[in-house]
Amino acid sequence: MNFAVVFYILCWVLQLEGLLLLLPCLTALCYQEKSGLVFLAFGIGYMLLGTLGKFKKPKTQMFYAKEGFVTVSLSWVILSIAGALPFVATGAIPRFSDALFETISGFTTTGASILSDIEALDHCVLFWRSFTHWIGGMGVLVFILAILPLAGFSGGYNMYLMKAESPGPSVGKLVPKLKHTAQILYGIYFVMTLTEIVILLCSGMPLFDALTLSFGTAGTGGFGVRNDSVASYTAFQQNTITLYMILFGVNFNLYYLLLIKKPKQVWLSEELRLYLGSILGSVLIIALMVRGFYGSWGETIRHAFFQVGSIVTSTGFSTTDFNRWPEFVRALLLLLMLMGACAGSTGGGIKVARVLLLIKSACYEIQHAVHPRLVKQIHLDGHVMDRGMLHSVNRFLIIYSLLFIVSLLIISLDGMDFTTNFSAVAATLNNIGPGLNKVGPMENFGCYSDLSKYVFMFDMLAGRLELLPMLILFAPSTWKNQ
Amino acid sequence: MNFAVVFYILCWVLQLEGLLLLLPCLTALCYQEKSGLVFLAFGIGYMLLGTLGKFKKPKTQMFYAKEGFVTVSLSWVILSIAGALPFVATGAIPRFSDALFETISGFTTTGASILSDIEALDHCVLFWRSFTHWIGGMGVLVFILAILPLAGFSGGYNMYLMKAESPGPSVGKLVPKLKHTAQILYGIYFVMTLTEIVILLCSGMPLFDALTLSFGTAGTGGFGVRNDSVASYTAFQQNTITLYMILFGVNFNLYYLLLIKKPKQVWLSEELRLYLGSILGSVLIIALMVRGFYGSWGETIRHAFFQVGSIVTSTGFSTTDFNRWPEFVRALLLLLMLMGACAGSTGGGIKVARVLLLIKSACYEIQHAVHPRLVKQIHLDGHVMDRGMLHSVNRFLIIYSLLFIVSLLIISLDGMDFTTNFSAVAATLNNIGPGLNKVGPMENFGCYSDLSKYVFMFDMLAGRLELLPMLILFAPSTWKNQ
Repeated sequence: MNFAVVFYILCWVLQLEGLLLLLPCLTALCYQEKSGLVFLAFGIGYMLLGTLGKFKKPKTQMFYAKEGFVTVSLSWVILSIAGALPFVATGAIPRFSDALFETISGFTTTGASILSDIEALDHCVLFWRSFTHWIGGMGVLVFILAILPLAGFSGGYNMYLMKAESPGPSVGKLVPKLKHTAQILYGIYFVMTLTEIVILLCSGMPLFDALTLSFGTAGTGGFGVRNDSVASYTAFQQNTITLYMILFGVNFNLYYLLLIKKPKQVWLSEELRLYLGSILGSVLIIALMVRGFYGSWGETIRHAFFQVGSIVTSTGFSTTDFNRWPEFVRALLLLLMLMGACAGSTGGGIKVARVLLLIKSACYEIQHAVHPRLVKQIHLDGHVMDRGMLHSVNRFLIIYSLLFIVSLLIISLDGMDFTTNFSAVAATLNNIGPGLNKVGPMENFGCYSDLSKYVFMFDMLAGRLELLPMLILFAPSTWKNQ
Repeated sequence: MNFAVVFYILCWVLQLEGLLLLLPCLTALCYQEKSGLVFLAFGIGYMLLGTLGKFKKPKTQMFYAKEGFVTVSLSWVILSIAGALPFVATGAIPRFSDALFETISGFTTTGASILSDIEALDHCVLFWRSFTHWIGGMGVLVFILAILPLAGFSGGYNMYLMKAESPGPSVGKLVPKLKHTAQILYGIYFVMTLTEIVILLCSGMPLFDALTLSFGTAGTGGFGVRNDSVASYTAFQQNTITLYMILFGVNFNLYYLLLIKKPKQVWLSEELRLYLGSILGSVLIIALMVRGFYGSWGETIRHAFFQVGSIVTSTGFSTTDFNRWPEFVRALLLLLMLMGACAGSTGGGIKVARVLLLIKSACYEIQHAVHPRLVKQIHLDGHVMDRGMLHSVNRFLIIYSLLFIVSLLIISLDGMDFTTNFSAVAATLNNIGPGLNKVGPMENFGCYSDLSKYVFMFDMLAGRLELLPMLILFAPSTWKNQ
């Protein structure tokens, strides 16, 4: 393990976070809030610490998969701890474990909260809370790769960083140079966020709300700035957010294909078709089943679309209490939670591409049992899937199931009912936010003990980083030299 | 598809079932019950039908995996329908869908019931209900392989039948001749059942109860003859049943190893260690957590042992209402349900061997991510696991998860709560019997609609036959000629 290089990158991360903490200071300036000084102090402190730590350059540039995984997981841990301290210092969330839960929930774009009255908080605190979604959505290391000339590191090894931090079963380079790939992704991310802010502003939403809600949508996070999430905004504003949630749940590679004018390839994407098909199918079924809850078909469809978009992309905003919907709809939403958004998007969950591959290999196995001598390959988007890819999807499912079970068992110690517990694990491991019953959209995670909260924090980080990086921290061989 | 040979074997199955229906007639004779005549009529009818059908011998002996799977799944469907009709005709269960549910639950050794007052039924009906467990436990086709000289069929192809009907990831021949393997397995099964009957008789239990409870234990089924399951028997009798449930959950190959005096190999079995370790660990934890519910440590441990043994082996008897235990214990029991008993036993679930392989491959994958060039093999009981075996375990997990999800979604239409639904699917797919909440040990499945009941029936059959045989019936290529 090359500790020096890991430490060096961690200092970069801390420095960057210090810089980003200056944004809530600006908010505080606008609203003349004293708590802005706390953010200022932490921001400067982190920048100084990071600069100091970076003085000693690492001697060797050895950087392999192991270093990549450890760097990514430790970066997210540092990022979360450093991001939580201002919440404690401003008194917004006095207990450290709660503040850490909230920050991890923010950076991992989960959106699960332990706060019951967010409207009582300062604007700068709410801004930082929502901004963590935007930072976490595309990944902080991808950001560093995009903007910084990681002097002296050979480009090939940085692929490990990007692989470990990007959502989905496979990460391709869009263009030969990794740095440019990261820049293109952040460019699309930035422009899409900007257009959402502009549309929301034009619809008459205040700037502060437009900014924070757009951060929450872009990162598919789900922290709002009002106690009723987005229920009290206008129908047009809600529909705009629905549209953008679904857009941010699409594989960003497809947007790049659109940019370079290859729309045919976009339409051929089986993942996109399954993703949009599931959304439309679910909305149709749900609208038919919850029609009785609302005044008109228009209202019903709006709520159904919003909730489906919010759940499938793992955002977690809500316009209505879906916890009160019929059991079948609740079960359907829980399954959409598990499936999640497209690979390579900012959304969470198992990912549509993985579900597609799992279904395809199940069908293949059934056929294979009938005709044992059948030699057939599994195709995706017209390409043959190689064994390695299928293998990694299987691996994901196994580790996912085991982690789910262990988490469920530990949090059951708190004595909450099974539905609450099951949906709470699903909501954190898939980075969604709200679950059912006691962690439903109008409730929060405050009812759980500290032990359970730490389990949830681990699950959120593991889910965001696609399981392996966090688990590797516990493998003894990771820490051996060589 | 060689329909002639499939039909020929189905006739054997029907004939055998007719013969077995004479046993409840004997019971009716002892208790002078008129309903015995119904069993007699059906028994003779089935034997005649089977004999008639067998007149035309199949021309070609072509018999491959496809024919094997289809034969097994259709055998179980025929067996269940034919076994359900006497329940309807005697008036014990007037509705056909309910009777079919009860019979499939019996043959698949699930033990889930739709009856609320079983003490009101005739003895011969209760006898047949429990006897289905014993027939289903070791498998009806294995029985046919053991006793019948399937004239003209070459022995090698019969392996497909045994493979498709035996529980667990792999079926080995104990001895070179398949027929002898089947005989050895049935010999062990018979002798173990007999010793349990004798011990229960010596403890002062009436013959009828001793027989039916032993059938229920041997098949790891769970149908009792009293409304409170086995709560009203003595502590000694309950402990005897606990012991036998755990014994019937052990891989039968290990008993054969004991018979041929290779105890060292038995002790080396990692599956056995994990199985016994999980039981002891769970009993310890549960006893500590439910101590307050009972008068003494002795009583607490007895109840904990009984419930753990009953759940992990997928039997489903109960001595106490574990639905009222703390949430952590309920979650633990639900996980034991999912794990199930050893491969090659009469128990259900995912099987300890599969869980062991899944855990091992998860650990391997984490190590592999740290050291991508690591070439290491996964060992089980000192043998190297080949890719094919690991692959089939992955396949099982994928199909299991998909089937679980689809079932859960359909039964959610009935509007039952999530805990009930989730545990009901787990209880049927793993052939356990009782679940939690509305399908808890003191409740029954009568609350579900017919649609849900058919889903449960399918899940019970799929679970008993290790998923593939039932699913293959739905693959179009199965029904194509060649």
